[in-house]
Amino acid sequence: MNFCSACGSPLSVRVPAGDSLPRHMCDVCGAIHYRNPRLVVGSLPVWQDSVLLCRRAIEPRHGKWTLPAGFMENGESVAEAAIRETLEEACARIELLEMYSVVSVPYINQVHVIYRAQLLDLNFSAGVETLELRLFAEHEIPWNEIAFRSISIALRHYFKDRQTSQFGLHTESLALPSGPL
Amino acid sequence: MNFCSACGSPLSVRVPAGDSLPRHMCDVCGAIHYRNPRLVVGSLPVWQDSVLLCRRAIEPRHGKWTLPAGFMENGESVAEAAIRETLEEACARIELLEMYSVVSVPYINQVHVIYRAQLLDLNFSAGVETLELRLFAEHEIPWNEIAFRSISIALRHYFKDRQTSQFGLHTESLALPSGPL
Repeated sequence: MNFCSACGSPLSVRVPAGDSLPRHMCDVCGAIHYRNPRLVVGSLPVWQDSVLLCRRAIEPRHGKWTLPAGFMENGESVAEAAIRETLEEACARIELLEMYSVVSVPYINQVHVIYRAQLLDLNFSAGVETLELRLFAEHEIPWNEIAFRSISIALRHYFKDRQTSQFGLHTESLALPSGPL
Repeated sequence: MNFCSACGSPLSVRVPAGDSLPRHMCDVCGAIHYRNPRLVVGSLPVWQDSVLLCRRAIEPRHGKWTLPAGFMENGESVAEAAIRETLEEACARIELLEMYSVVSVPYINQVHVIYRAQLLDLNFSAGVETLELRLFAEHEIPWNEIAFRSISIALRHYFKDRQTSQFGLHTESLALPSGPL
């Protein structure tokens, strides 16, 4: 961030009066440009004993498997974002169940939210950001080929909780890993 | 948003290739400037049978009562944001309990997250954005003077759930109101 998006002047970085953190500030028009974490929202769509995964057609983690999820947009609720992303990435219609996992990823300024969901039919197909889709039973999950840690976390909780049918919310914060994000 | 924050050139608004929504795009350097919902995170701090509320020293809703909460910052987890905001607004130390309410407010592009919390001591005091602090028993809550609907929602759920000591997650999405936000 180099220029003021309001007036186009060069920005400086300093702590505004009454604030405690440095911000990008415009000395010409007075605008303060905050940067805040973004929400990545999706679903864990289930059909019978299997979970629908998407193989990513885009970077990061091209070719790896993930749950349908993406950046929440302005003007929608968290639940609407989960339904929309599932439709966009997997062309899949779901009944959204409860908010199931909320994973903070502070080193990339993101919060990943996954809902449990019931697939309404098997008429899913790969969206433009997806190479292929497949239903995986627990023993078939490609654990070493999962794109993101927050997705592995949601899947592991799901298969564990399914044994008792107790699906409470799981919250967690990830530390910077030595391996893949 | 009028100018590219990367190169300072004027922006145009159109749908990028492969996207479905109009974005602020720079025709000079190619940057796409997304805008996404922001997280407002806080706590519902309890001492015995009372809840700690803050009377706002800032707009919006100056003079109204709220729970300690504010915008989540880059580089922190949701839980860390709740603890930090409680310390900043109420100078209060808490033990954070579970994530308790998640309220989408799509018409202002926000998601409000409140954790249940236990006050660790009574050495709280008003932060710079707070006029005064007070512990309220249920019958003392100034329901008509609560600053935001998401805060009323969290408080109402809390007093209801407290009757059974069952504190599950509450999720909700608010429609544009005719009255106060």
